[in-house]
Amino acid sequence: MPASRIYVEDIPSRALAGNPLGDPSTRRILVYLPPGYDESRQRFPVVYLLASYPKTGASFLQFEAWEEPLQARLDRLLDQGRIRPMMVVLPDAFTRLGGSQYINSGATGAYQDYLIEIVQWADQTLRTIPAKSARAVAGKSSGGFGALRAGMDCPTVFGLVADHSGDKYFEMCYGPTLPRFLRAIGEHDPERALRDPIGTRPHNQAFFDVMEVLALSACYSANPTSRFGFDLPVDLVTGEIFEDVWARWKAHDPLDRVESRADALRSLDLLFLDCGSGDEFNLHVGSRLLHRRLGELGVPHSYQEFHDGHFRTSYRYDVSFEAISRAFEHDD
Amino acid sequence: MPASRIYVEDIPSRALAGNPLGDPSTRRILVYLPPGYDESRQRFPVVYLLASYPKTGASFLQFEAWEEPLQARLDRLLDQGRIRPMMVVLPDAFTRLGGSQYINSGATGAYQDYLIEIVQWADQTLRTIPAKSARAVAGKSSGGFGALRAGMDCPTVFGLVADHSGDKYFEMCYGPTLPRFLRAIGEHDPERALRDPIGTRPHNQAFFDVMEVLALSACYSANPTSRFGFDLPVDLVTGEIFEDVWARWKAHDPLDRVESRADALRSLDLLFLDCGSGDEFNLHVGSRLLHRRLGELGVPHSYQEFHDGHFRTSYRYDVSFEAISRAFEHDD
Amino acid sequence: MPASRIYVEDIPSRALAGNPLGDPSTRRILVYLPPGYDESRQRFPVVYLLASYPKTGASFLQFEAWEEPLQARLDRLLDQGRIRPMMVVLPDAFTRLGGSQYINSGATGAYQDYLIEIVQWADQTLRTIPAKSARAVAGKSSGGFGALRAGMDCPTVFGLVADHSGDKYFEMCYGPTLPRFLRAIGEHDPERALRDPIGTRPHNQAFFDVMEVLALSACYSANPTSRFGFDLPVDLVTGEIFEDVWARWKAHDPLDRVESRADALRSLDLLFLDCGSGDEFNLHVGSRLLHRRLGELGVPHSYQEFHDGHFRTSYRYDVSFEAISRAFEHDD
Amino acid sequence: MPASRIYVEDIPSRALAGNPLGDPSTRRILVYLPPGYDESRQRFPVVYLLASYPKTGASFLQFEAWEEPLQARLDRLLDQGRIRPMMVVLPDAFTRLGGSQYINSGATGAYQDYLIEIVQWADQTLRTIPAKSARAVAGKSSGGFGALRAGMDCPTVFGLVADHSGDKYFEMCYGPTLPRFLRAIGEHDPERALRDPIGTRPHNQAFFDVMEVLALSACYSANPTSRFGFDLPVDLVTGEIFEDVWARWKAHDPLDRVESRADALRSLDLLFLDCGSGDEFNLHVGSRLLHRRLGELGVPHSYQEFHDGHFRTSYRYDVSFEAISRAFEHDD
Repeated sequence: MPASRIYVEDIPSRALAGNPLGDPSTRRILVYLPPGYDESRQRFPVVYLLASYPKTGASFLQFEAWEEPLQARLDRLLDQGRIRPMMVVLPDAFTRLGGSQYINSGATGAYQDYLIEIVQWADQTLRTIPAKSARAVAGKSSGGFGALRAGMDCPTVFGLVADHSGDKYFEMCYGPTLPRFLRAIGEHDPERALRDPIGTRPHNQAFFDVMEVLALSACYSANPTSRFGFDLPVDLVTGEIFEDVWARWKAHDPLDRVESRADALRSLDLLFLDCGSGDEFNLHVGSRLLHRRLGELGVPHSYQEFHDGHFRTSYRYDVSFEAISRAFEHDD
Repeated sequence: MPASRIYVEDIPSRALAGNPLGDPSTRRILVYLPPGYDESRQRFPVVYLLASYPKTGASFLQFEAWEEPLQARLDRLLDQGRIRPMMVVLPDAFTRLGGSQYINSGATGAYQDYLIEIVQWADQTLRTIPAKSARAVAGKSSGGFGALRAGMDCPTVFGLVADHSGDKYFEMCYGPTLPRFLRAIGEHDPERALRDPIGTRPHNQAFFDVMEVLALSACYSANPTSRFGFDLPVDLVTGEIFEDVWARWKAHDPLDRVESRADALRSLDLLFLDCGSGDEFNLHVGSRLLHRRLGELGVPHSYQEFHDGHFRTSYRYDVSFEAISRAFEHDD
Repeated sequence: MPASRIYVEDIPSRALAGNPLGDPSTRRILVYLPPGYDESRQRFPVVYLLASYPKTGASFLQFEAWEEPLQARLDRLLDQGRIRPMMVVLPDAFTRLGGSQYINSGATGAYQDYLIEIVQWADQTLRTIPAKSARAVAGKSSGGFGALRAGMDCPTVFGLVADHSGDKYFEMCYGPTLPRFLRAIGEHDPERALRDPIGTRPHNQAFFDVMEVLALSACYSANPTSRFGFDLPVDLVTGEIFEDVWARWKAHDPLDRVESRADALRSLDLLFLDCGSGDEFNLHVGSRLLHRRLGELGVPHSYQEFHDGHFRTSYRYDVSFEAISRAFEHDD
Repeated sequence: MPASRIYVEDIPSRALAGNPLGDPSTRRILVYLPPGYDESRQRFPVVYLLASYPKTGASFLQFEAWEEPLQARLDRLLDQGRIRPMMVVLPDAFTRLGGSQYINSGATGAYQDYLIEIVQWADQTLRTIPAKSARAVAGKSSGGFGALRAGMDCPTVFGLVADHSGDKYFEMCYGPTLPRFLRAIGEHDPERALRDPIGTRPHNQAFFDVMEVLALSACYSANPTSRFGFDLPVDLVTGEIFEDVWARWKAHDPLDRVESRADALRSLDLLFLDCGSGDEFNLHVGSRLLHRRLGELGVPHSYQEFHDGHFRTSYRYDVSFEAISRAFEHDD
């Protein structure tokens, strides 16, 4: 049996051309092709797998101690008969600020459009099954947020969604971030960090605390007239929370969007959610609330909670890929 | 010159009789009497000094390594000519939950009434100057909150207020507490902690995290029909923030009360505020906002920020006592 | 039945006269007198109870939230019939550096001599049973260290020893302290902290990290020719561990002394040891080793491990006081 | 100008065949070939660059947010004229336990032999300059340790050494690790972690604390007769430090080896050392001591300290690669 392989192509993006942060618009797309892809004429369903902040598609393929890399994981799941053959596309939606949340923003770029652009590219370039019912979008953390959001916004594109520990219930997951940010700007000037994140020294926890709030602000509260290109949710001098900016953040909270997007979510063949019960960003709280709200709204979904935190939980993809594969099989 | 001394009396309180937590209604009152009090017939102005959570009046007189105890501090300030002779009354407003915030609550008791009761007792028992202009109320942290609140609510009683690092801007000072509480209840059952705080083991950080939210809930969101006697701001199962309960908390935020109580604050002879610029509870943020709001409202006040955090800052009483003494002298 | 009371006397000490740190040589001694002491002619056994670093005898009587103060604890244990009437003497062995470890040092003073002086004072002043078999010495942490050391050094004075979580196995309990100290001196100049600990700002964790190593150095490695009056175990510039100084520290480790003092310990009527199994200073490791070593040496003793850490474990005095009381009763 | 590229080859190793941990003996070797390599017949000097624990050669080429990947860094340094063209070989010395310290151990395998084997392979396979004066070995943390050790042990192979923040002064860098390990084994059974590190859950800090001590023990204190294949430096039950095992660790401390290997180090064309002055593992202490000791021994070397900690300091390779390049040029 021939082995799986990773297809690599650098593709210029229309959606990202001229993006506000000046990030590259040509991006490398990585695609897992299942064993036998090259030897057959078969078409395959596709999972679009979204990386967490501040990572990118390539991160899934990289060495990390005691973690099974994605290719080995998929090969094994196939070998164990737990999934059917499928392609997995790994987009690069990294930005100078660490990530895009996979949404369109006037301050970072049109990253949800970019996701759709990749789908079109894949359908034209590879032997995909070009149908909603054979397209899943999945991810963890910011990638889970992006996957759920894609399911809400683009239900005609994606028929399956898996959201692992995705950002939600912003009061609980971002609330404690704001005082940390305020402390961190005593050490790292945010303007300097924005201008030259690579050259900023040292890359300590305070640096990451600054970058995270810059990135989220760029994604959620773009403002071309402000000095950063976006509004921060707190006053850099007093620390006051700007309620209007915070409201713009909250408008992106899946819990705030779920009702208006319930029809879209109901149209999915799979809505899979999970979270560690000790998530360091308190995402289990928002996950429980979304699970309850989905139930109230009559949106079919699966929710699982597992004994772990937020980090190094890639073994959970075993569960979501199995669920995705089963939901794909419904189509046959 | 005769020395200062501490007057001690155990006094039954009408205000605390039958309090809901079953805490003692007879409380020990400690009063610093300045040197020469017993030898003279003079009357003295009084500072009512409120302890921080979870302490009590006696804590001011206790040994703590490398901290100047209150009696020594006052003797020294007098000796240095930085304050005039005055009495300092140290109330005990401790509760089973660690404190009362010095306000009236259906779940803890009528602790602001109790403060007024102590003023009346002092005026009847000791040679006070029984006038608003000779009565200050001061404190740190929860004691600062209580002092500011007394100034807002009882401006005919207290003419001077000093609020050191007092609770304010609850989003910033209590917001990060809620996820800590949610983690802590995985270790300590709040019902058990409420029933028997002394017997609960171990008295680790999680225990204190539980007690703090129980105490604040009892002070801010009493509810005789709920199982605890008060409403918690979060769901013990999902972690959801109860917005209605949080709104009841917020109604106690000095920032939310300052406008409606501006006349009361304007009537004060002294409104002193300070905070460490690295306050671990982010109280410098609320302090800056209150300082700005007071300015907008035309409320005369003094605000100082100093390079330190929240803890072990009793040296700041040197500054507030000097300010209080000067404001007292205006009367002469 | 008449109540227990606290006897208070300020006593000039010969042992502490002219002590090197310039600390007061007149110290306040506090003594718990059991109920009925004043009404009877009876003599009582005595426990000398040693405070932990950086506390003093008075600390046992002070208010601390959700902790039973010592007087209430002893009254209750008596009332429950768990202990017989006894006196408890609370020495003050605080120093400018936070403590003396209750040993004689050329850099702090003759604090073990002072302990013996207090015993003599008590036997002359109060109705003690002036016999080794009616004299216990007990304490926690540095107080436990001091108690065990008194048992080793003065077996003709003390017949019973209770060591709660006392300093031992210095590699494990002090080893991790040294890098913390090295980081802390980047923030707090040790010479300044030594000269004016009260005025040093801020009193943050780094300050306490500095003071602790200064104090231990003064106790374990006095050197009148060095600039501090003692040798530090690390080079302030490079951070190098001075092995000769460390060897002087180690010579005070109970694990290093136990063999040569085995006869002294064997002569005790009670040797009680305990430790929390999650002790933050890893004292459970040393406790287990001492327990094993005592067994090998044939020294009768009791060792208990309990589920807690190092702090807020005063409830363990219930156990040791019961054991002490039973051992006292053997005499009758 | 043609671009640089990464040469990739999977090579069976004689040195690693039948290694005790059952790790693969065929390893992927990655080599940075400078721009123009393929178009010329030129030979190039080589840097053997050793990854830190628990990473591998491939880690240098992976995406990490806000870090310049190695290939881009080398291209840029060349382009800026700061280095001359050179090859950089990235060995894989990962083990089931996270790393090998690049030394021979009966419990992990002959990883220093493997390093030499790679040198031979490179000289046979690629257009290296096959001379000691054109061979550098460099790395950070465990990689720095391995580089310095290679310089000490194999001075006829490597003529240049760069040790960034390498393990040294084990008292300071590993000492505080031991109590952390003891706490961690309360959560993670070391036998289970050794048997199945990938399947052990969760991969939290305690897991990494366990793995680190297992790995170091396997490298420093192999023992084929013990149940793990190596001796741990602490008793899993009591926590006692086994002084004999610790002594075997210490025998690997560069500070303990420097004197006996001074001649080897003196024979180097370059010995470059640096460390962050706030290294979280206190490696700046050992670095200062090694710097001083090298001076006393008359070993020429360069030592730099920079304002940063232990992590995310790859920008320091700019400095070491420049120094290496200059030292290479001496040969021309």
